[in-house]
Amino acid sequence: MNRSSRRQFIKNTGMTAMAGTVIFAAQSNPEKNEMKKIFIHHVYFWLKNAGNASDRDKLVEGLTKLSKVKTIKNFHIGKPAATNRDVIDTSYAISWFVLFENDGDQASYQADPIHLKFVEDYSHLWSKVIVYDSVDV
Amino acid sequence: MNRSSRRQFIKNTGMTAMAGTVIFAAQSNPEKNEMKKIFIHHVYFWLKNAGNASDRDKLVEGLTKLSKVKTIKNFHIGKPAATNRDVIDTSYAISWFVLFENDGDQASYQADPIHLKFVEDYSHLWSKVIVYDSVDV
Repeated sequence: MNRSSRRQFIKNTGMTAMAGTVIFAAQSNPEKNEMKKIFIHHVYFWLKNAGNASDRDKLVEGLTKLSKVKTIKNFHIGKPAATNRDVIDTSYAISWFVLFENDGDQASYQADPIHLKFVEDYSHLWSKVIVYDSVDV
Repeated sequence: MNRSSRRQFIKNTGMTAMAGTVIFAAQSNPEKNEMKKIFIHHVYFWLKNAGNASDRDKLVEGLTKLSKVKTIKNFHIGKPAATNRDVIDTSYAISWFVLFENDGDQASYQADPIHLKFVEDYSHLWSKVIVYDSVDV
């Protein structure tokens, strides 16, 4: 399929397909939009200087570099939403959400020089980190 | 594009495109697989009867029903991965990861009859819930 046909396909269906979405495309349940056969690595950071915009920006800069690790399929750099109920923890500064295909890719990420350099260069910024790793039930 | 051409497109590119992946496809950065312009709603449940497989199955059943809420774009029902380091919290029973397009869709989900029914029917199972809502930095 040439580029023109691909554009037409996208136009026709209202959908875009690109390399970065393979993990969802190939492993989602088309009926329910369920993500399956994935490894979710979700990290929440609390800054030493809570509320310091400059430190937050530095951490985002670090995570942007970290996102280059090859085994990362998809990622999101987030901040707390405006929602606020008793059960919601809005106290963290930055959310770092990463999708891997499997635990092997996650283990590779942990040992990746880019990851080690990230910890070396940016860990002085945070006072607390909580990680939740999840796989399919 | 007819069905046959679409299949060919998928075959040619090694990618699958489907309605459920729109949120990633349309809103990801193709170079870096970055998810953008999304609302991440990530909930961790702790069971009253910690480690009780039957109660965990019931909660998964409830979340599967909950996943029918229309404004949910993608979701994942997870359990703690095998990873275990100091910073990792492996104490929760179930991870409920939901992607919305925006806060409005999340608010609609909160008020959805399916959601209210889920809380009514299954909240007796859990002792603690932590919610992290994140949006783009």
